[in-house]
Amino acid sequence: MQPFDFYNPTHIVFGPERLDELNTLVPTDARVLVLFGGESARRFGTIDKVKTGLGARTVFEFAGVEANPTFETLMKAVALVKANGIDFLLAVGGGSVIDGTKFVAAAAEFAGDPIDLFGGGIGQQLPTQSALPYGTVLTLPATASEMNNGSVITFVAKKAKLSFKSPHTFPQFSFLDPTLTYTLPKRQLANGIVDAFVHVFEQYMTYDTGALVTDRFAEGLLQTLIEIGPNIVNNETPDYNERANFMWAATNALNGVLRVGVPQDWATHMIGHEITNLYHIDHARTLAAILPAMLRVRRSQKEAKLLQYAERVLGITTGTTEERIEAAIIQTAVFFESIGVPTSLAAYELGEADVEAIVANLEAHQLVRLSEHGDVTPAVSRDILLASL
Amino acid sequence: MQPFDFYNPTHIVFGPERLDELNTLVPTDARVLVLFGGESARRFGTIDKVKTGLGARTVFEFAGVEANPTFETLMKAVALVKANGIDFLLAVGGGSVIDGTKFVAAAAEFAGDPIDLFGGGIGQQLPTQSALPYGTVLTLPATASEMNNGSVITFVAKKAKLSFKSPHTFPQFSFLDPTLTYTLPKRQLANGIVDAFVHVFEQYMTYDTGALVTDRFAEGLLQTLIEIGPNIVNNETPDYNERANFMWAATNALNGVLRVGVPQDWATHMIGHEITNLYHIDHARTLAAILPAMLRVRRSQKEAKLLQYAERVLGITTGTTEERIEAAIIQTAVFFESIGVPTSLAAYELGEADVEAIVANLEAHQLVRLSEHGDVTPAVSRDILLASL
Repeated sequence: MQPFDFYNPTHIVFGPERLDELNTLVPTDARVLVLFGGESARRFGTIDKVKTGLGARTVFEFAGVEANPTFETLMKAVALVKANGIDFLLAVGGGSVIDGTKFVAAAAEFAGDPIDLFGGGIGQQLPTQSALPYGTVLTLPATASEMNNGSVITFVAKKAKLSFKSPHTFPQFSFLDPTLTYTLPKRQLANGIVDAFVHVFEQYMTYDTGALVTDRFAEGLLQTLIEIGPNIVNNETPDYNERANFMWAATNALNGVLRVGVPQDWATHMIGHEITNLYHIDHARTLAAILPAMLRVRRSQKEAKLLQYAERVLGITTGTTEERIEAAIIQTAVFFESIGVPTSLAAYELGEADVEAIVANLEAHQLVRLSEHGDVTPAVSRDILLASL
Repeated sequence: MQPFDFYNPTHIVFGPERLDELNTLVPTDARVLVLFGGESARRFGTIDKVKTGLGARTVFEFAGVEANPTFETLMKAVALVKANGIDFLLAVGGGSVIDGTKFVAAAAEFAGDPIDLFGGGIGQQLPTQSALPYGTVLTLPATASEMNNGSVITFVAKKAKLSFKSPHTFPQFSFLDPTLTYTLPKRQLANGIVDAFVHVFEQYMTYDTGALVTDRFAEGLLQTLIEIGPNIVNNETPDYNERANFMWAATNALNGVLRVGVPQDWATHMIGHEITNLYHIDHARTLAAILPAMLRVRRSQKEAKLLQYAERVLGITTGTTEERIEAAIIQTAVFFESIGVPTSLAAYELGEADVEAIVANLEAHQLVRLSEHGDVTPAVSRDILLASL
């Protein structure tokens, strides 16, 4: 079990119809900017409820934070904040809106050019000493951005996705209302389940460090997602408990509890980001397309954990080592397919030429030593991508 | 799954030999009071390491916080704080020292008579708007006081244990160094394992609310404690990973993650506190003495969760409902006995007259509607105690 630090000060407000409590959580004299994506947040009444909760406070709106939020769009929100003396941000949406709001919170307090916040690297600590306080109202469970300090921002001009984190960019609070997921289309539900599942995998499916508690927590989340995933996507009538468990599972998948004492992989995410950059395929779908091949190509590095996953999560206890591992990989892919998410790049009509383009982008972005061992070089990424076709 | 709030801002610093980091976590100009229990913290060098970590800061010491810390003792520490302008507290010890430090932190900032902090009730929110900041250096895993805001204080004059919590009484940071447990006697290790186990049970073994994630996390902690408990107590040479998992499991057993979305029992703890008050039996030992009888007497209220526990944690899948439940209760008692902790009050030579004294104390302290259903009246407590003899 490796040494670790754990810190997560976000206050979670979980349950239906609690937005009136915004009135106690946002400072009385705050000038608030509400950030959201498309018009669904307004159409389904969430923006109205947020405004009711904010009462007499001065409220501004910034609509149009896109999926895979861009530096270019978010800088418009930063300008709005600076022009209007806004001192509190409220994200209403999923991971894209919340990631974008984190960037606005940091950039609004940064003295230099916000492009320098990223320092040119991946997963950098933001070189900022403060950020505007902000809260979130989660409408799409997937990324856990509502309870962590990380953010992924797309630079259109650079065709790049860069991530940052800072001790100052945790949400002060997040409202998790499972009923807000009732209006989500099936595709977004399925994407959220896959995203949460792969977040667990990036922290769990590495090598054994004897972190027994962390492993059990990870396995519990995988079991939960497998148990409820198909119902959530395939049943016409939403079930409150299933949605509540989905929401809380997705939050716990990346709020830090699975990170303690263990190494982390993230190769699937890094390769997936490049696919989204180039082909605009949904983030979660890139993960599902790559993960089975990732596990097969790197089977020997992950053998112990693959066998543990097979036994504890999937109940696979018979067969040779190879058979159990192959069965576990197949069952994982079958799970993704059962909620309508394809598990190969062929489903998106990508071919060998595209593989070369993706590998070239990984090299251009210095993503040349990925994974828990740092051994996923561009050549290994190519093998994985070819096996994903 | 019930609505909930979750908030836990404590920064965990986990791993061996990290006390030098006190220098970055405690304000440079702080006047620090280090609180600890007996002389073992000094003898084994922990106090010296803490002082080295605190560098040039002005440091005071308060030794002698006893097991089941008393209001009477702690008020001496409050006087020391006020007389010396102390503005930061550092607890070095287990749950008793940390619980006591929480009280000192709150009482030092309370304008009225600190006895009024308790408001006469059990589990009250402290009527205080602030507390001194404090950190902890954990030496005995058991209570999770290092990562929560609750505290239990004994009033010698009243023969009472009262608990409080406040949003202001979370530790700012806690150092969790598994090697600090290497010098603990077997009895304290066993007590810590039982205490953590029963903390999980008080939140898990109630009725089903469909909180799938919380249940899986609870089961993972129970599995971990059962897996490592006997080795920790019975092996002569400490194993780092076992100690690390014990420490982290005990913290997670009562840091709030198991509380979300579920009802809570605590009847075992409430009855156990009265036994400790009257007979000075170790807290954890009172829990082990009562729990099997508690489960048998209240079997019907807890049937669904008892069966879930039997299957998922203990692997009991055959037999009638009654047989599986009885097997689960027996295996739980066998686990406690395997680490040297008796599972009946007879082991402490208590008899029927003592049962009446304990029940009288429960009534005197208004502990008359305990449990997740509020149905553990003094009559039910008597049944449980008689079945524990």
